[in-house]
Amino acid sequence: MDELKQRILQDGRNLGGGILKVDSFVNHQVDPLLMDACGREFARRFASVGATKVLTAEISGIAPALTTAIHLGLPVVYARKHKPITMPDQVYLTLAPSHTKGRMVELIVSPEYLANGERVLIIDDFLASGQTILGLARLAEASGSRIVGIGALIEKTFEGGRDALKVLNVPIESLARITSMDEEQIVFGEG
Amino acid sequence: MDELKQRILQDGRNLGGGILKVDSFVNHQVDPLLMDACGREFARRFASVGATKVLTAEISGIAPALTTAIHLGLPVVYARKHKPITMPDQVYLTLAPSHTKGRMVELIVSPEYLANGERVLIIDDFLASGQTILGLARLAEASGSRIVGIGALIEKTFEGGRDALKVLNVPIESLARITSMDEEQIVFGEG
Repeated sequence: MDELKQRILQDGRNLGGGILKVDSFVNHQVDPLLMDACGREFARRFASVGATKVLTAEISGIAPALTTAIHLGLPVVYARKHKPITMPDQVYLTLAPSHTKGRMVELIVSPEYLANGERVLIIDDFLASGQTILGLARLAEASGSRIVGIGALIEKTFEGGRDALKVLNVPIESLARITSMDEEQIVFGEG
Repeated sequence: MDELKQRILQDGRNLGGGILKVDSFVNHQVDPLLMDACGREFARRFASVGATKVLTAEISGIAPALTTAIHLGLPVVYARKHKPITMPDQVYLTLAPSHTKGRMVELIVSPEYLANGERVLIIDDFLASGQTILGLARLAEASGSRIVGIGALIEKTFEGGRDALKVLNVPIESLARITSMDEEQIVFGEG
């Protein structure tokens, strides 16, 4: 999606070590009109998968998942990393390695909002190693629901996430595919 | 706002001790069309305050702040509770008591995204004691920007937040004002 790629080139920063800083429009400050456009694009690409729910992980998945859900007219659930006091004792819980924290984090979903038979579209900000998305898929499968698609704003193809997700056998869409961040550059691939 | 009040009566749960569970449409699962309608309503109510930025706190403030920002066409910043590796060393940081965690949490904003002279509209999910919102106001003031309005989806008037925020001397709007949660009821006030 050209609008997102242009913005990454203009305002993203390659901090080295494969870390892309997009804090000015995705992760800390959010450009709501760009995010709305990305949500519209995900809704278009996943129009025919028959999703009944959008699933993401807090925190930075919330914005793109919400705008996608607005355009699909579907509820969105964000997996929590800490169990709030309003959540029942019995939950779906899995562990996933956090890229930015250097440790495992919990991903928790209440069985109240992920039901047997649900068709789940996963939306997140980044597709890097794919481990967070695999964690979300485990939560969905534990509930008896089925993943029907995976969308990420930004894919870093050199971290192998797409291969890791192949086992799920669902369409994977990213709006900006970065194939290299070597030598302080940001290089996009096709699609 | 009638749509939100109806939904609270239908799907909200009074867990006792002043805790209102709205996890099925605000806090864990989000109803994106309701959230979009709330954002539109905030945009209408704050149309004339001349805001240049929307500010909220992660996690559950993100959804209503984002939809408000979409309808106002303004960038939204969410204060982080943990400093990500992409954030510079010099930040605006304050502490606020967390209702649900029973301890102080950090609220952190990068100086990159809150500039001197900015006119800041604060949007959050709950107005209870007002302490999170006061924390956000301290961050804004530290940056030399000015608070021009405060909006919350749900106000619990019996926790005194509106009085605590009086010192800021700005318009405060809540879309559903709950005046009592005694005896397992949820009672709305005017406005």
